[in-house]
Formats: sequence, structure tokens, C-alpha cells
Amino acid sequence: MSTSIETLLDELKAFLRDDQISTNETILEHHSKDESYHAGNNPDIVVFPESSEEVSEIVKVADRNDTPIVPFGLGSSLEGHVIPYDKGITIDFTLMNKVIEIREKDFLVKVQPGVTRSQLNKELKKYGLFFTVDPGADATLGGMAATNASGTTSVKYGVMKDQVNDLEVVLPDGEIIHTGNMAQKSASGYDLTSLYVGSEGTLGCITELTLRVYGIPENIMAARASFPTVDDAVEAVVSILQTGVPVARVELVDEASIRQVNSFSGMDYKEKPTLFLEFHGNEPGLKHDVDFMEEIVADHHCEEVHFEKDNAARTKLWEARHNLAYAYIHGNPGRKLMVTDVCVPISELASAIKHGREKIEELDFEAGILGHVGDGNYHALLMIDTENPEEVRMAEQFNEAIVEYALARGGTCTGEHGVGRGKMKYLKREHGSALNVMGQIKSALDPKGIMNPHKLIDTEGRGK
Amino acid sequence: MSTSIETLLDELKAFLRDDQISTNETILEHHSKDESYHAGNNPDIVVFPESSEEVSEIVKVADRNDTPIVPFGLGSSLEGHVIPYDKGITIDFTLMNKVIEIREKDFLVKVQPGVTRSQLNKELKKYGLFFTVDPGADATLGGMAATNASGTTSVKYGVMKDQVNDLEVVLPDGEIIHTGNMAQKSASGYDLTSLYVGSEGTLGCITELTLRVYGIPENIMAARASFPTVDDAVEAVVSILQTGVPVARVELVDEASIRQVNSFSGMDYKEKPTLFLEFHGNEPGLKHDVDFMEEIVADHHCEEVHFEKDNAARTKLWEARHNLAYAYIHGNPGRKLMVTDVCVPISELASAIKHGREKIEELDFEAGILGHVGDGNYHALLMIDTENPEEVRMAEQFNEAIVEYALARGGTCTGEHGVGRGKMKYLKREHGSALNVMGQIKSALDPKGIMNPHKLIDTEGRGK
Repeated sequence: MSTSIETLLDELKAFLRDDQISTNETILEHHSKDESYHAGNNPDIVVFPESSEEVSEIVKVADRNDTPIVPFGLGSSLEGHVIPYDKGITIDFTLMNKVIEIREKDFLVKVQPGVTRSQLNKELKKYGLFFTVDPGADATLGGMAATNASGTTSVKYGVMKDQVNDLEVVLPDGEIIHTGNMAQKSASGYDLTSLYVGSEGTLGCITELTLRVYGIPENIMAARASFPTVDDAVEAVVSILQTGVPVARVELVDEASIRQVNSFSGMDYKEKPTLFLEFHGNEPGLKHDVDFMEEIVADHHCEEVHFEKDNAARTKLWEARHNLAYAYIHGNPGRKLMVTDVCVPISELASAIKHGREKIEELDFEAGILGHVGDGNYHALLMIDTENPEEVRMAEQFNEAIVEYALARGGTCTGEHGVGRGKMKYLKREHGSALNVMGQIKSALDPKGIMNPHKLIDTEGRGK
Repeated sequence: MSTSIETLLDELKAFLRDDQISTNETILEHHSKDESYHAGNNPDIVVFPESSEEVSEIVKVADRNDTPIVPFGLGSSLEGHVIPYDKGITIDFTLMNKVIEIREKDFLVKVQPGVTRSQLNKELKKYGLFFTVDPGADATLGGMAATNASGTTSVKYGVMKDQVNDLEVVLPDGEIIHTGNMAQKSASGYDLTSLYVGSEGTLGCITELTLRVYGIPENIMAARASFPTVDDAVEAVVSILQTGVPVARVELVDEASIRQVNSFSGMDYKEKPTLFLEFHGNEPGLKHDVDFMEEIVADHHCEEVHFEKDNAARTKLWEARHNLAYAYIHGNPGRKLMVTDVCVPISELASAIKHGREKIEELDFEAGILGHVGDGNYHALLMIDTENPEEVRMAEQFNEAIVEYALARGGTCTGEHGVGRGKMKYLKREHGSALNVMGQIKSALDPKGIMNPHKLIDTEGRGK
């Protein structure tokens, strides 16, 4: 960066209040990293805009001064997405946290990017509605769109991309566009909404989202099914999917992870490979589905199905599941989280998880497997000492083996966490020449390479 | 085009058989137009490749000689998508019509672009599977992906974009890429699959598709519900959606269109505004949904619900619905079809259709309304004499009024037919500055502007 920090600050102060601009060391440090093992780096300046127009002006300052921009939600990303490797300006969206409009009749809601998932669901509950995507972390919706997040309910309702009708985006030159509209479907030109969902801040800043929401289901039934082996549990999931029982959530939690749940969330779940399941529907339909599910899991040696009948027990179940990453972090002080995120075709899931478990046995530190197995997406959570080069090497080798296995079988290196910095090295292997097309798009839309450089894709410009 | 047709033919003959290349007048004329009112124009040459490699070589010839390429499926598009305005080479995908692989355990199928919807469903039936998107016409799957087609079942299963996991694409320089993979979800870089779905042949040629398929529902119930007025029918749909009854299809057919159905398909349906409905599910759940639906339509003055209990009657019902455009064309010899295609937020649907019907009354030629009202997408079908300038002017004014109404209410000018040539004039109004982003993508990926010029977007190059 050729411009001095003082010049940038002067230009920013022309339209932001003093309390919207920070160079405080604690604030910079807070914006230096995410929740992963990736080493951090401080930005020069953190700004806290309150409107799309302010974001536009900030980006114009960066554009004029060839200064990197990193958009920042709550920093819950897992592949170093928000680390400002080239320093520059980090835009924190905390103050843009308003639910702008709930269009209940259209099953749509307009929000600012700093609104969190739980904040939105609290608002929606009054209308009998809910937002389906739950990535575990109480992330911001802007961040979730930027990484195409998904989670436990995606097997029924789809991923973030399926929920976004429109984005307001500030382009790398400061111009403000809308990528979509409020109609349920459209064939009107290139799908810019899907391009920006998952673009990880490398093509612009998301400043408003129009999202799809759903009616809270008439009836919900949750259950825990425990199995003698992980193989049995996974085979049961594959059977459930293949018989077409419409499951709303189906999560695998292995013994190691159940132990973490019990210790962190104070539960006394049986320490066996377990499926956490949920079904949504009308009363007679739901009963039929659940009966069918019980038959299927019995065929796969299920030892016990425990139904969570009331609301409170069900909420506890999913909180325990969602807190699993934190349980691992909390239970391993001084260590950092590396988590694999491959997604494979359903027919390859059982053998992929088997392969993952064999590889875990070669490690000599804490690790567990869990995942959104209904989508073919599973995670291995490794707690590593990032000061120990041998451990880091082993963990990276493990990650690579898992990715290679998935790619060789038509899968992807990341089902839901995104590329960030950590997965860049796999993209050429996964996409081949298509990676050049991504590069051409990046170069066309962000010719100076100022948007979140060194993430997702390197181009001829700054990213190189 | 600077190169002579003879030079192109010589270069094509180097790798294609003589019967894969045509300059026959009848063949050229067949590839000059689609099923719409848009005036046609002959290509110079039509080629019939049999493999992705041949498509790649054809595109390389075009690239070297700065010659336009138009990809052609069955020509069932409705906005002039396949008309070769700058002549050049039309690629007909008729010979690339193989179902390559059915991965039943993964609910995926790999097909060549010339496979039609009905051909695929015939193959899938053996496995108890089906492909959900049905745009009425028995279009090719390549064409359906290129226009992001949808149809009667999209209210439950989604549009074409939701069904495409991966595309093989021949880029404008002849390189072959894959845009996706076989996993159910991915956050691995920019979503090129969604970019190419709906790109209407302007960024490359689709040469293979990996599509999602579904298990044939355990139970299906179809029904016709007739109402005293279109308003009542539409209000009933809005209520069904808002109470969350999971409808699989819900189609509006107005009186004029029911008359066409009766005359063309030999039915004796009551000549009243009618909803064609379908529900999928397990037996007890389905019964519950259908009972609830009956209560709702009764509240909206429904005069009669007629259930189509057996398979044959249900098939007849949907064939009649799908043949409606052909019924209009057949019933109006010498006239051509103009069809509007707006999609609006559900809360605006009743007033949008009311507005459309008022505007229809001002016309003095045959017109009717029908549509995928569960998505907020409706069509006005106008049968116009394209030799009569006054009629064409009136029809275009009508179309424009419908589009303006939808855009002013957060809708889109095209829900499912795509932009082609006919909707280009509305894109600036709909997308504002976002249209420049589309232009930058087009210029970056097709710098010479050889891919389907004068469609979807005009750029600095050839399209201008």
C-alpha cells in the first residue's frame, strides 16, 4: 500500500464519526483472525459503517488509494476468510444490524448484513416464521451469504444460496447494485445473486439481503438413535435418504464427540455413535415418517431411539449439537481448531467416513467426527498445538488425505465452510481449467484486486 | 464475418463427417427461428456434433474465424433465443442425446444436452425415479439449463438451477471445463454452475449435465378446482401457500384457456376459472393436506373440486395443461404466439393478474391467462398476426405494461422463459447498474462476442 494510514484516516473522517473508525490495538487484534488455526494479521484500520452509502464511500477511499478491504461479520469463519494478510481497512458490519422488513405474506425478509441468525429468528417467531440455515455458530447473515453457509437443516431446506433472493452489493469501485428481486423465480440474465453468495468478500461487500423464510412446521419430532458402530449409523442414514423419508435434519456424532457434548453441555447421552434426527410435517404424515424411520434404523442394528418430545428437550439437543465445535475448543485449552469439510456423493459417504476414521487413528491428538450426513458432508475436528510444527504437519497431511479422497470420488474440498485461505491450495485440483474462469471473473469485477486479497483465488493483480 | 462460408466448411470437414454438416435450405430454415413471434434469420451452416470434443473443435473454428455460434436444442424457446441474427454456425445437439449414467443411489443422472425431458423420464421410471422440471414443451435438457427453465412442479421441487449439480461447458475458446461436482452441496469458489444455467448460450456451449432426480412419490393426488372468478382462484392459491400446505403443483387456467383445453385435448372440463392441483406424500399425510386444501378453496367460493384418482386421468390432466400453448397455436392458424412471463411476489399476484386481465380486455384478438401461480409466475398468451403492424404494436404495448407493473412491485420481466432477444429491452430497467456487471462478465468470458450474439446482453464487441 503506497498511501499512508494518516491519509486514509483523513479521507475516512470526511464522512464517518470518530467512533466509527478505530486504530486501537485491541480492536485491530480482534479483527486479525477468525475461529480457526490460521495465524492472524492486524488490519491498519477498522471502520464501523451504519449504511450502504457509508460502505460505498469507504470502498471508494480504498479504490482511490489501492488499499485492501476485508468485510467482517462476527469472525466465526473457519478458513481464515477475514484475516487481513495485506493489512488495509477492515469493514466491521456490527452496526448494520437491523431487520429492515418482514414481508410475511411473501415469506421474505430484508435484513442488514450484521443481523445474526438468532436475532432474525427471534424477530420471525412473532410471525410464526423461521430462517432455516443454522451453521452452528451464531454468525451474521452477511457472513453466511458470503461463504454460502449451511448446516443441520440443509438436507430439507437447502443451503444459504437457496435462501437468498436478492443482495445489495457495494462493488469494488463503490457502486451499489442489486443482484436479484422479490419474485420466487427469475430467468432474467446472469444469476449474480448466486455469484455473490459464496464469493467470500472477493467481489464486493454485501450491504443488504432479501432472504426466504418458512412457516414454523405444524409438528416437529426430534430423536437420538444410537448405534454400535459409526458404519451402522452412516448406513442407516443412506437407507433413510434412499427410501425417500423426508428427514429435516440428520446429524452424525461419533463417540468422541458425544463425550464432548456430555462434558461441555452437561448431558448424559449414551456414549455411542449417534444420529440426531428431526422430522417436520403434519401430524399423521409425521407419525408415518417416524415409524418408517424406526424400522430402517432397526435394520441397521440401532440400539436405542430416544425421542425428544417436548420443545425444551429438543432445543437442548440442537444446542448441544451446535456447541460441539466450542466443546472441543473449550476441552482443549491452548490448542486450535482445524476442521475438514469435504462433501461426497451419498453413495460414497460410508466409505469416506470409514477412511476418515482410519486416518484419525494415526493421529496422536484429540479428534472426532460429526457432520451433516444427509448432505454427504462430514467434518473431522482436530485440536492442534499450532506451536508444534510436527503436529501441524500431521494435521495438514490428514486434511489433504481427506480432501484427495473426496475429490477422487466426485466430491468437493468444502461443503459449507468455504475456501478462505485454507482451501485455496485444493482448488486447481478440484476445478481444473474452471479455476481460470473464476480468475477471469475476479479480474473483470475487481481489476485492482482490493477485495479481500489472498482469499478464494489469486489473480494477476494483488492476490498473487 | 470476414471468413467465407467455404473456408468454414473446409475447416469443419477436417473433423466432421459430411452428414454432420449442412447448408441445405430446409435445414437452415428449420434453425432460423423458435416457437415465438420473433422473425427468423437463417444461419450459414448447421453442424451436428456427436461429442464434446467435436463441439470444442467447432467452437475453435468459430473462434479462429470470428464467426458467431448459436447452440440449438429443439427450438422450443419463446424469446428468439436461437435465432442466428448474425448468421454463422448453429450447433444442433440432436445427436448428443445419450443418458450417460444413472447414479440411482446418489439421485443423480448424467446426460448429454440433446436428451429431452420425456426421454429422461422414460429411462428414470425403471429406477422409480423422475426428473421434476416440466416446462410444457418436451425441450432438451441442455436448452432447459441454458434458459433456467421451470414449470408446474417448481413450487415444490424448484427450478432448473436447483437441479443442476454440474455442467460440462465448452468455453468460447474451445476449452472444456466442469462447473461443479457430484456432491449435494459445495462452497468451493464462485458458483459457475449457476452462472451458466440461464446464460442462454452467451458464455459457452453446455455439452453434459449432471442433474438431480427424485424418487417417484409414494402417493399422488391431483384435482381440478373451479371458481366463479379468476380473483377467487388466485386468492385461494395465496391462502394455500400461506397456510403452508405443501402443494406440488398449482396452476391457474382461465375460462378462455379452459375452452382451448376442451377443444384441443378433447376434454369436457367446466368452462370456469380453474386451478389444477397436485399433492405428493405418504398416505395419511397426503389425506390431511388434501382435506385442508378443500377447506381453503371452499372459503374462496370454489364451486367444485374434481379429484383425478387414477394414473390415466391424472396424466390426461397434465398433458392437457402442457399442451395449452399448442392449443392456442393450433386454434389460431396464421397467427403467432407472444407470451408474457412476469413473476411477482406472492402478495402482489392477485392484483397483478387482475391488472393483466383488464389489459387483455383492451385487445381485440384471442388471449388467455394461465400460469404457475404457486411461484407468482403467470403468462398471458396472445395470438398475433405478425403481418399486422397495429396488432404487433398493441401486443408489444400490452407486454410492456405487464412488465412495468411487475418490475414496479419487486418482480421480474421473465420468470422462466429467459431473456433471449425479446426481453433485452427490459433488463436495464430491471437490473440498473447490475447490468454492467453482467456485461463485464460477458466481455471477460467471451471477449470476441461470438457466443449467441444479440441475446441476453449487448456488449462493446459483436453484440452492440
